[in-house]
Amino acid sequence: MLPGVGVFGTGSTARVLVPLLQAEGFEVHALWGRSEEEACGLAKELGIPFHTSQSDDVLLHQDVDLVCIYIPPSMTKQIAVKALGIGKNVVCEKAATAVDSFKMVTAARYYPQLLSIMGNTLRFLPAFVEMRQRLLDGYVGEIQVCDVRVYGPSLLDHSYGWTCEELMGGGGLHTVGSAIIDLLSYLTGTRAHRVHGLTRTFMQQNSLIRGIRRVTSDDFCFFQLLMGATGSGGVCCTVTLNFNMPGSFVQEVMVVGSTGRLVARGTDLYGQRNGSKGEELLLGGNGWLGPEVKEMPLPHLHGLSSMVKALRQSFQAHEERRSWDQRPVAMASTFEDGLYVQTVVEAVKKSSSTGEWVSVEIMSKEPDPNQNLCEALQRNKN
Amino acid sequence: MLPGVGVFGTGSTARVLVPLLQAEGFEVHALWGRSEEEACGLAKELGIPFHTSQSDDVLLHQDVDLVCIYIPPSMTKQIAVKALGIGKNVVCEKAATAVDSFKMVTAARYYPQLLSIMGNTLRFLPAFVEMRQRLLDGYVGEIQVCDVRVYGPSLLDHSYGWTCEELMGGGGLHTVGSAIIDLLSYLTGTRAHRVHGLTRTFMQQNSLIRGIRRVTSDDFCFFQLLMGATGSGGVCCTVTLNFNMPGSFVQEVMVVGSTGRLVARGTDLYGQRNGSKGEELLLGGNGWLGPEVKEMPLPHLHGLSSMVKALRQSFQAHEERRSWDQRPVAMASTFEDGLYVQTVVEAVKKSSSTGEWVSVEIMSKEPDPNQNLCEALQRNKN
Repeated sequence: MLPGVGVFGTGSTARVLVPLLQAEGFEVHALWGRSEEEACGLAKELGIPFHTSQSDDVLLHQDVDLVCIYIPPSMTKQIAVKALGIGKNVVCEKAATAVDSFKMVTAARYYPQLLSIMGNTLRFLPAFVEMRQRLLDGYVGEIQVCDVRVYGPSLLDHSYGWTCEELMGGGGLHTVGSAIIDLLSYLTGTRAHRVHGLTRTFMQQNSLIRGIRRVTSDDFCFFQLLMGATGSGGVCCTVTLNFNMPGSFVQEVMVVGSTGRLVARGTDLYGQRNGSKGEELLLGGNGWLGPEVKEMPLPHLHGLSSMVKALRQSFQAHEERRSWDQRPVAMASTFEDGLYVQTVVEAVKKSSSTGEWVSVEIMSKEPDPNQNLCEALQRNKN
Repeated sequence: MLPGVGVFGTGSTARVLVPLLQAEGFEVHALWGRSEEEACGLAKELGIPFHTSQSDDVLLHQDVDLVCIYIPPSMTKQIAVKALGIGKNVVCEKAATAVDSFKMVTAARYYPQLLSIMGNTLRFLPAFVEMRQRLLDGYVGEIQVCDVRVYGPSLLDHSYGWTCEELMGGGGLHTVGSAIIDLLSYLTGTRAHRVHGLTRTFMQQNSLIRGIRRVTSDDFCFFQLLMGATGSGGVCCTVTLNFNMPGSFVQEVMVVGSTGRLVARGTDLYGQRNGSKGEELLLGGNGWLGPEVKEMPLPHLHGLSSMVKALRQSFQAHEERRSWDQRPVAMASTFEDGLYVQTVVEAVKKSSSTGEWVSVEIMSKEPDPNQNLCEALQRNKN
C-alpha cells in the first residue's frame, strides 16, 4: 500500500515532483510553502487538498507517511530531522553545511527502519544505472579517469535569494557539483580522499540583482578529485561546471579505463572498447516520453521520474503504509552519502580559497558550537 | 624567390612536411637523419637529392636558406642556434627545457633579420585564425573561461625512445599541452601568471616497453592556467589531455565570455551568442582537401599545410632568397613564445609534484650552470 505524501517546497522541483508522484499512484495530501500565498497557489494548481506555511502541519498530518523536502538548503536539516523524529519516511535534497548533514546522519542512524534518502536523481537515471553495471562488469577495465562537464544557463532565481548566496548553499558547486560528486562515488564505488578546486563568480550582478547586492555563489567551478587507492593507483576525476552559458544544457560524464571507456551524454550512454573503431550506443536515445520541463534539464527530470517509480516499487509490496522494501531504492544516496558529498563540497571551497589540495575528512562527531563561533569571529576579523 | 630548404628529422612530421613544401614550390635540397639508413630511406622516398647524418652538412649546404627542425626536443636547441648563427632562417619544434628555450631566444634576438618561428601549427589552422579574429571583434564579450580537451591514442613510439621519457621532452603535456598553452595565449592575447596541474602515467609498460623499462612521460594531464589580469578579473583556462583513448582523436577548444561562446571542434568553428537558440557553424566543415595521414590528427595536418602556405607567401614577394615578409607569418609563435610555453610546461610539472599553484616566471638571464648542477645533485639525493 502506498504511503500518503507531504511535500515541502513550491519551487520548480516540487512542481514537477507532485504530478510524477500522482501518476505513480501516490496521494499527495499536504503542501508546505514559505508563504500562505505560494502554498495556496501551487496546491490549487496541483490538486493538493491541504496547504500551509506551518511545517508542523505537514509533519503531523495523519495521512502523511512520506515527506519530500525540496526547500532551500539552509532549512532542510531542521525539517528532515524533525520528520524522522515523528516517524515519517524522508526524501530530501542536500543541506547547506557539513554540520547540518551530520545531524541528519545522526537522525537517520537513530531511525534505521525509516526510509531516508537524498534525492540525487542522477543515481536513478537509467544511463547511470547501466553505466555502473558496465563498470562492475569490467567494460573499461581498471578505471583511470573520470571527466565530467556540465554547462548551462544561470542557476540564479529571478529575485534575490539563497541561490545568490554561497553561504546559503547557492552556486554551481553546491547545487550541481554535489550531485556529480555523489554520482562519481556511485559509479566508481570509491570516495575522494583529496580534492583541489577553483570557484568563480563571473556575473556578480545582473539586471535583477544590482545596487548594493552582489552574487556570492559561484557560476563557474572546476575541481579535481583523487579517489580510491592513494598514490598512483587511484582514479583522477575532473569536473568542470559552467553556468554562464544561456541557451544550452550539456551534461557529459566520461569514465576512461585501461581497456575502454563509457560516456553518458545527457540521458544516453555510449561506450567504446580499446581496439574497436567507434562508439556504440549502449542505452538511449528516446527513453523519456514525458513532457519536457523548461527549468529542469532532461537527465534530472528523467532521473526524478525513475526515482518516483523506484519509490512506488519500494512501498507497494507492503501492506503497511510506512513499510518499504530496500531493494528498489538500493541505488539511492543515503544521508551518509550526503555528509560525504557536503564534506567534499566544503573541501573544494577551502581549496579554492587556499589554492592547496585538501584532504577529505568526514566528520565523526558534532563539532563544539563554541569553537565554530570562535572560528566565525576569527574569520570576520580577517 | 623561394628559399631552398633543409629538413632535420625523419619522423612523421618531416614525412608530411616535405611533400607540403614541395607542393608549394619549395625545393627541399637536404635531409638529415639520426642514422645514414633512416636519412637515405626517406630521402629516396621523398625525392630529396642530398641526405646525411652530419648536421653541419645540412646547415652549411649552399642551397639551403631555410632550415626546418623536427627532431627530438633535446636536440632542437643545438641545431636551431647553430642554424641562426650560420645565417639561415629557422622553423622548429619545441626544445626540451626552459634553459634551451632561453638560449634559442638569445640567438633569435641576436639575428632579428632572420625568420625564427616555433612550428605550432594550430596557430595557422583557419578555425583558430577565425576564432582569434572573432574574439577581437567581441563575439563572446569579455573572455571568462577557456576549456580545452584533447583525447587520443598513445603518443609513444613503437620502440623505446624520447617519447617515453619525461626528461627528454616526452609526454602529453610537453608534446600536445605545449601547443595548447601557446594557442591559448594566441587566442586570448594574454599569458598565464599562475598554473596548477596534475600529470599521470597510467600505462607505465606495454607490450613493447617492458622488463626493466618504464614509461615516465605522462599519458594523462590536467592543468589550469590563470591568465591575464590577476585577481578575479582574469581568464580561467582548464585543459584536459588524455592519451589512453585508442581509436579516437578529439580536440575541442571552447572560449566562454560574458555575451557568448566560441568552440573549435577539430577543424570546425562554432559559435553561440547569449540569447540565440543554438550554435552556428562559423567555419568548416570540409576545408581540408588533402590526404589524411594516420599519424597526424587533422587539425595539425591542416595547420601544417596552412603554415607552409604562409611561409610561401612570406618568401615569394622578395627577390632575395633569404628575405621574407613578416605579415603572412605574423600569427606564428616566436622563440619568445616558445620560452613562455616551456616555462608554463615546467610550472605545471612542478605543480603536479608539489600540489601547489606555481607562478610563471619567465627566465630573464641564463642560469648559472653550476647552480643547476648543484640542484640536480640535490634532487638525486632525495
